[in-house]
Amino acid sequence: MSNMTTSACLIIIGNEILSGRTQDTNLAHLSGVLNELGIRMTEARVIPDVEETIIATVNECRAAFTYVFTTGGIGPTHDDITADSLAKAFGVEIEEHPEVAALIRQRPASPQVMASRLRMARIPVGATLIENPTGGPPGFQLENVFVMAGVPMVMQAMASTFDSDRLPGGKPVRSITVGAFLGESQVADDLAEIQTRFPDIDLGSYPFYRPSGYGTNLVMRGTEPEDLDAMAKAVTEMIQRFDATAYPGGAPDQPDT
Amino acid sequence: MSNMTTSACLIIIGNEILSGRTQDTNLAHLSGVLNELGIRMTEARVIPDVEETIIATVNECRAAFTYVFTTGGIGPTHDDITADSLAKAFGVEIEEHPEVAALIRQRPASPQVMASRLRMARIPVGATLIENPTGGPPGFQLENVFVMAGVPMVMQAMASTFDSDRLPGGKPVRSITVGAFLGESQVADDLAEIQTRFPDIDLGSYPFYRPSGYGTNLVMRGTEPEDLDAMAKAVTEMIQRFDATAYPGGAPDQPDT
Repeated sequence: MSNMTTSACLIIIGNEILSGRTQDTNLAHLSGVLNELGIRMTEARVIPDVEETIIATVNECRAAFTYVFTTGGIGPTHDDITADSLAKAFGVEIEEHPEVAALIRQRPASPQVMASRLRMARIPVGATLIENPTGGPPGFQLENVFVMAGVPMVMQAMASTFDSDRLPGGKPVRSITVGAFLGESQVADDLAEIQTRFPDIDLGSYPFYRPSGYGTNLVMRGTEPEDLDAMAKAVTEMIQRFDATAYPGGAPDQPDT
Repeated sequence: MSNMTTSACLIIIGNEILSGRTQDTNLAHLSGVLNELGIRMTEARVIPDVEETIIATVNECRAAFTYVFTTGGIGPTHDDITADSLAKAFGVEIEEHPEVAALIRQRPASPQVMASRLRMARIPVGATLIENPTGGPPGFQLENVFVMAGVPMVMQAMASTFDSDRLPGGKPVRSITVGAFLGESQVADDLAEIQTRFPDIDLGSYPFYRPSGYGTNLVMRGTEPEDLDAMAKAVTEMIQRFDATAYPGGAPDQPDT
């Protein structure tokens, strides 16, 4: 539906996400950051902490997408195998990075704790660092693959350092939402017709069910502001033809009376 | 890490999840349901509403995993293309299913609305239905692929009908969590040693940072209750060797004083 070709895939590494113990929020956050850079999140995968799976998934995805991001598995414990797996995926060595090791040594600890913590200084050879504004160990970039922490606070700090020098993209995607207390089936034909008229704008239809009534939010997404506005106008007029109220920004909790 | 071989992959179909507009909760829910059936969620993918992507992903995953589940894209509008894509993936026709059409016709509507709604009666030939206890249109199963609604309430209702006759699995996975106000780096060496002693139990380490202190929750998952209990005992004793409190079920908001 879109002419935007700068694609991205997020690989979420972690048994705790797959098992349902932890709810991922990194996908939604990173999608927003990339969007501002004109990069579309095209796919996401959630995979376990298994070396061969990480290697195979990274190698498949880095060939298929403009950018690949990983979250998770870069801490100090035995189940943090992302950095080693990335080195193997790229066929490079992994070494203690002097700059990262110096950062980690700034915070005093017993020799045993320091040795564990220094696991986080092991960076594949040839990688560039991704700054970590929380003060902890950084992530790293190998070619088109960006390796980030899984803890949302840390991941968000790392993502805040991304700019269009590091991640050249296209035009940012904008979206307009219009809601109505109309069922999806009522508007389905009209939506299909409107979509046909604006092929470069994605028109999504999201039903909701509330005690106050059911309805549909219509979300338009695309890079061309004129097309977006024209489609939103067509959607609004369509809703009004049903004698219903069109709510910019989405339907409120209760219909107007 | 596990000897359980009944694998599953969830394919989450929907631009709204990729864009970050909607937060997926179906992965966590389905993981729990499958767990009780002795089936391990092995991977999840989030893909856009694009026919060729759906076809390619379904065909790759149904060859690679014991079971594949999809959520999303089975409503009445133009962007609901899951059923058609599944028919193409399996190389079968898609037809109006008389039983589903009869169900949909029970609720009166204008001819135009009914025509849109009847899109949801189009089921690939050879599929069996997945009952929808909310009263809406059902999902369907084609070989090892289960096609479900994306709306969490409806998806959860459909998943509640799964049993071990339909989805034969293995032993259910159980988990034990023990928390402590100890840093990951402090316990990293001991955890690695304990993991080596119990290779069939996954031992995950999840750090937390709170105003009251930082710490780590240790989550053990596996099918063998004796091994789980023995590992939990080893983890608890390890925490106590650090003169810290081991909290069964995970660390509370504040440490005991």
